[in-house]
Amino acid sequence: MATQQRVPAVDRLAEVFTSTRCHSIALVNGLSDADATVQSMPDASPAKWHLAHTTWFFETFVLRDHAANYRVFDPAYHYLFNSYYDGEGGRHARSRRGMLTRPSLDEILAYRAHVDAALAHIPDAARDLVELGCQHEAQHQELLVTDILHLFAQNPLMPAYRNNIAQQSQPQPLKWIKSQSGLVEIGHEGGDFAFDCEGPRHRVVIEPHTIASRLVSNAEWREFMTDGGYSRPEYWLSDGWAWRLSEGITAPLYWQGDQTFGLTGLQPIDWNAPVVHVSHYEADAFARWADARLPTEFEWEAAVGLEGITHMFDTAWQWTSSAFLPYPRFRASPGTVGEYNGKFMSGQMVLRGSSHATPQWTARPTVRNFFPPTARWQFSGLRLARDL
Amino acid sequence: MATQQRVPAVDRLAEVFTSTRCHSIALVNGLSDADATVQSMPDASPAKWHLAHTTWFFETFVLRDHAANYRVFDPAYHYLFNSYYDGEGGRHARSRRGMLTRPSLDEILAYRAHVDAALAHIPDAARDLVELGCQHEAQHQELLVTDILHLFAQNPLMPAYRNNIAQQSQPQPLKWIKSQSGLVEIGHEGGDFAFDCEGPRHRVVIEPHTIASRLVSNAEWREFMTDGGYSRPEYWLSDGWAWRLSEGITAPLYWQGDQTFGLTGLQPIDWNAPVVHVSHYEADAFARWADARLPTEFEWEAAVGLEGITHMFDTAWQWTSSAFLPYPRFRASPGTVGEYNGKFMSGQMVLRGSSHATPQWTARPTVRNFFPPTARWQFSGLRLARDL
Amino acid sequence: MATQQRVPAVDRLAEVFTSTRCHSIALVNGLSDADATVQSMPDASPAKWHLAHTTWFFETFVLRDHAANYRVFDPAYHYLFNSYYDGEGGRHARSRRGMLTRPSLDEILAYRAHVDAALAHIPDAARDLVELGCQHEAQHQELLVTDILHLFAQNPLMPAYRNNIAQQSQPQPLKWIKSQSGLVEIGHEGGDFAFDCEGPRHRVVIEPHTIASRLVSNAEWREFMTDGGYSRPEYWLSDGWAWRLSEGITAPLYWQGDQTFGLTGLQPIDWNAPVVHVSHYEADAFARWADARLPTEFEWEAAVGLEGITHMFDTAWQWTSSAFLPYPRFRASPGTVGEYNGKFMSGQMVLRGSSHATPQWTARPTVRNFFPPTARWQFSGLRLARDL
Amino acid sequence: MATQQRVPAVDRLAEVFTSTRCHSIALVNGLSDADATVQSMPDASPAKWHLAHTTWFFETFVLRDHAANYRVFDPAYHYLFNSYYDGEGGRHARSRRGMLTRPSLDEILAYRAHVDAALAHIPDAARDLVELGCQHEAQHQELLVTDILHLFAQNPLMPAYRNNIAQQSQPQPLKWIKSQSGLVEIGHEGGDFAFDCEGPRHRVVIEPHTIASRLVSNAEWREFMTDGGYSRPEYWLSDGWAWRLSEGITAPLYWQGDQTFGLTGLQPIDWNAPVVHVSHYEADAFARWADARLPTEFEWEAAVGLEGITHMFDTAWQWTSSAFLPYPRFRASPGTVGEYNGKFMSGQMVLRGSSHATPQWTARPTVRNFFPPTARWQFSGLRLARDL
Repeated sequence: MATQQRVPAVDRLAEVFTSTRCHSIALVNGLSDADATVQSMPDASPAKWHLAHTTWFFETFVLRDHAANYRVFDPAYHYLFNSYYDGEGGRHARSRRGMLTRPSLDEILAYRAHVDAALAHIPDAARDLVELGCQHEAQHQELLVTDILHLFAQNPLMPAYRNNIAQQSQPQPLKWIKSQSGLVEIGHEGGDFAFDCEGPRHRVVIEPHTIASRLVSNAEWREFMTDGGYSRPEYWLSDGWAWRLSEGITAPLYWQGDQTFGLTGLQPIDWNAPVVHVSHYEADAFARWADARLPTEFEWEAAVGLEGITHMFDTAWQWTSSAFLPYPRFRASPGTVGEYNGKFMSGQMVLRGSSHATPQWTARPTVRNFFPPTARWQFSGLRLARDL
Repeated sequence: MATQQRVPAVDRLAEVFTSTRCHSIALVNGLSDADATVQSMPDASPAKWHLAHTTWFFETFVLRDHAANYRVFDPAYHYLFNSYYDGEGGRHARSRRGMLTRPSLDEILAYRAHVDAALAHIPDAARDLVELGCQHEAQHQELLVTDILHLFAQNPLMPAYRNNIAQQSQPQPLKWIKSQSGLVEIGHEGGDFAFDCEGPRHRVVIEPHTIASRLVSNAEWREFMTDGGYSRPEYWLSDGWAWRLSEGITAPLYWQGDQTFGLTGLQPIDWNAPVVHVSHYEADAFARWADARLPTEFEWEAAVGLEGITHMFDTAWQWTSSAFLPYPRFRASPGTVGEYNGKFMSGQMVLRGSSHATPQWTARPTVRNFFPPTARWQFSGLRLARDL
Repeated sequence: MATQQRVPAVDRLAEVFTSTRCHSIALVNGLSDADATVQSMPDASPAKWHLAHTTWFFETFVLRDHAANYRVFDPAYHYLFNSYYDGEGGRHARSRRGMLTRPSLDEILAYRAHVDAALAHIPDAARDLVELGCQHEAQHQELLVTDILHLFAQNPLMPAYRNNIAQQSQPQPLKWIKSQSGLVEIGHEGGDFAFDCEGPRHRVVIEPHTIASRLVSNAEWREFMTDGGYSRPEYWLSDGWAWRLSEGITAPLYWQGDQTFGLTGLQPIDWNAPVVHVSHYEADAFARWADARLPTEFEWEAAVGLEGITHMFDTAWQWTSSAFLPYPRFRASPGTVGEYNGKFMSGQMVLRGSSHATPQWTARPTVRNFFPPTARWQFSGLRLARDL
Repeated sequence: MATQQRVPAVDRLAEVFTSTRCHSIALVNGLSDADATVQSMPDASPAKWHLAHTTWFFETFVLRDHAANYRVFDPAYHYLFNSYYDGEGGRHARSRRGMLTRPSLDEILAYRAHVDAALAHIPDAARDLVELGCQHEAQHQELLVTDILHLFAQNPLMPAYRNNIAQQSQPQPLKWIKSQSGLVEIGHEGGDFAFDCEGPRHRVVIEPHTIASRLVSNAEWREFMTDGGYSRPEYWLSDGWAWRLSEGITAPLYWQGDQTFGLTGLQPIDWNAPVVHVSHYEADAFARWADARLPTEFEWEAAVGLEGITHMFDTAWQWTSSAFLPYPRFRASPGTVGEYNGKFMSGQMVLRGSSHATPQWTARPTVRNFFPPTARWQFSGLRLARDL
């Protein structure tokens, strides 16, 4: 958690707060009230809900607890926009978030303005919580984008979220880079911000191995498909194979022949670009087919900064072979915000890096993203590793 | 089906068309784009979808087939807004109607205007289809209201659809009225409009019986509840009891203690008013508890116009003991519109009359409404009968 | 219900009782303890359970209530072998009947012997109940056979229940026979045994029609299949089509190409024999394809005894177009045995006649068998009718 | 895998084979054909199936591949009794194993005798496979017992599997024992038998900690329950809490008040004995409540042989905090037997030690048992650890 030392001046945190809050608004630019309301699956949340919940976070943990004269915007919102904090009592069921046609998007924007105004001056005692709230909001910004993409993908009209011009990438040679081995220090330490699950810093043993200089490309994934990768159980984990069969999975999510649905609508697949929207099960099968393996999250972290290594951040999250489990001596943050990470340490796999939808000011070598091994609607790709 | 004779002048059908189309617009007055987009359960449809599908009906069966120069508004809509007409090819899955945040409500209103303009002159060859389309739209108008009510009931904020002042009714004595028996003619005949399933007119044998002068009231339903009606299996059909247990049903839908959620929001229950939002299973159990039974749909129809009988129309649909089955010599209308009723003659029970949400110009003694025995979100109540 | 008059002598009922009880034992001849224990689906029951429940019926309703010194065989059985009589309290869940590896088949046979010995003298006051119990057991005898067939069909070894020599039938011409119309009396009346739902006898109006002289044959069903009957929604009820799609139905149950699995194992299909193991949905679609319809249960009953009509009994139950609903003035039998039929009058279709697995002494023109429209594991076929 | 060196003489392996095969037969002593046939849930298998599948393993991997003149007992068994080996082709669906009333238990015993006779002389080239087959059979012996217990628990008669006299244990003081830390070698190495997933041996870093001298007792578990352990979400992983709510879990499996159902039937709970039949989710919540944690599987392995540590084996398997993942440089065994462990490395947690139902000759410090975090029907308990 942040200490006073690591935030040099009032201005810096206030700036982060302001820009974070503004960026969320920018993300719903062009979305209708209806776009912002519908929930396309239980795992996804409406855009409006993301806007409201991130505001709820500041209202609840900062203003209610640390701002003497704060007037709650609407008492009903405490129930409506709690995500999963048992310490904050009851809440609207996650799978029913899409039923909330009211409050409207405009009302939620007013809610945001109300809370932002109250935070024009950040209470001294809550500076760490405000920083946490900004990091929290950044995570929801990425989810907002992936959730809107998933929603639009359900619509036969295939609306585009953004109108950027899609570009075709150049092919990049794959190099196998010898990485660190032996006793290596892993995890966050020091005064800068990190989520509780990124620490404590500790030593692990890493065996000699090489790691790929770049992510697996769409062209390589097409090879896997052509070679029967989706129909040969010997490449798959048992649960993954059962999932593939029951869901009828035969390609990355959003692929339609030689096109793929993305933020700019339906576009030709950029074959040299990294494959995204694959599950851990698919990534693991691909690696076995390629006579390689996924790196552990420790190997991934140890590779940050290696000469020749590219795309660690800002392209696609990278599935690792590590389950999301606590580091030695991990303690959840005290209080209700301690429900942030620790209670999800079951049934999830770690992804490392960041994607093009991640606010890059939050990217860190120690960040541990996590999703179930079946999740595909995130910008999730993979990087290979091999034993030496 | 309508014949030229039964519509005396061009004006009359055009008037019906215009007023029907306008009424639909009036029904979404006050609804936001989001309100009109969300689907609260697979059995319900978004308000926007109702507006679009009823328009699709005219565009497809009237304009496309009978208007020489008609320009389709948007070719994608044919797929998006087909309901269940296999003869019209593929369609967006019913349970996914709520994913369509686009087109927006405004675009659907433009679609309506486009079609209405094209029907400023009704093609002679399509007058029957236009009449059918208006009756069809009237049915969707009622569904639009019950679906919005269901949606708003999912929202903890409990928004009101309309701001009418709720009134408390006066108690009405229950009289048992001796009705017709012997050979009775049932069903529609003649030139006026009726759906195909309302005919052919035919004779049935009705046994001597009495029928209640009014519907069962909320006060009577409360008695049933107080007497353990929901916890004594001897009153229930076997499937009804299993449904009651698995769904945890203990009161009419939308009751919350002494209040009920309705079109005007959460209100005190009007004890003298007819009970609504009960399923066939509940209605049947109530009747057995009351040492009575539900009337057959033939008994109901034979009671129309009896002296002393009240509330046949305009209050609540009334469950009967009749399964929705074809009348002797029933033939579905030719062509795709013949999918309207006949293919649903399985697993449904007949309701008769009409509710306060039914456009009353469509109420007829021969109308056969039908829903599965578990359906509760319609304005469905009951009237008792007894053998003599 | 039986009256003293209709049973001429003590001997006759005792004979029926003895032969019925023996026949059940004969039916499990050749079955192992395991065969008699496993439940192949929630709708089916283990053979052992059928043997025990029919015995429970006599023990509970006859011996406990009418035999002064009767000693209950095992008090635990009252809970284990109650089927669905709420009036008799709790019971082992239907879907869990297959968990009861104990008591063994031998213990159940001892239970039967104990009860049979106690009924060596039938209490005068319980003669009607004993008759009911025999009819009840006869129904379970047929279910025992269809349930064993279903169980064996799950086994890749495809064991044969019986070793009869299968015969190939001769083709029979189909004749359309003009049947009764106008006011017709339907239902049971008089002193002979009938289930409560077979009465009261009452008048119905039957419209002029013809009825097929024989059942639909396997060869005719093959024609339906060849003509795309299973892939053209226009022949199907909406719920039927949805069921067909979700279950992947493309042929009668147990057909495997030109062979079918039956009581004698896997055998070539006898093309001239009546088709069996079809659901109501399939039968209804076939009839529409054949430009005919299923008869109502009243038309079926009115056709009994017509010159030229064949296979009314002893071949296959025949789906009708009638929902299983109470006749006018129907009252369930008093007491717990009144749960026998009345509470199932929802969601089921009537079959008439009897099958080759029905103990033929129970076949009557008024018998109303009933199953959900999806049921296929009974010996269910169809006979067509046409309007005149 | 075994090498010739580690099996000192032909006799020793033959002895193991013979005693293993005999022990399986002993386990079904007292079970009826029906007991041995029924499958109580998809995760469990019938006793008969365990007997057959372990035999199939020898027939397929040893006799078919390595015994020149071996005559297959019944060609149909290859399909019926394959468990999950995709390399061996199709198989009877796991969830349908309980449908196989044929072959009978006697026929399976004959199958066993046939295979055992063919293995009177173990082919030299298949000695490793025979050893693997014996270890494999030992695992199924434990499953056979836990599966029978689960089956009998579904029966309201609560039959006892064995008639041993239950004993009440003496309380044992809990001591916290300081264990190894720093760089520690983990995993199997050398010539003795081990499953592929137990290696390769490799170094891990273990942080300073203490480990409990004994397992958590039933009395301690009762304290947890009394203190609201099952109703306070703060102790639970998020998925665990959702599972607890949806399944209505409020005590260890088989507890009924102060009694518990076990191999000797319903018995008073032995409060000083280790708690068993708890899931990983429950064990993890208990540990958090106790201000402790589960040990990692590495900490567990490092504690074997410590002075004062007890009950590592032969009492109950012990849940660890480790997900079942491959060790560095893990390679599955070549060929189809390589499907044994590797493909299950997803969604499962590691248990260490062994239970009273484990054939103790197979207990090793390096054995990694694994089950999903919801599994409760194994003899699974827990031992606590604490950071230093």
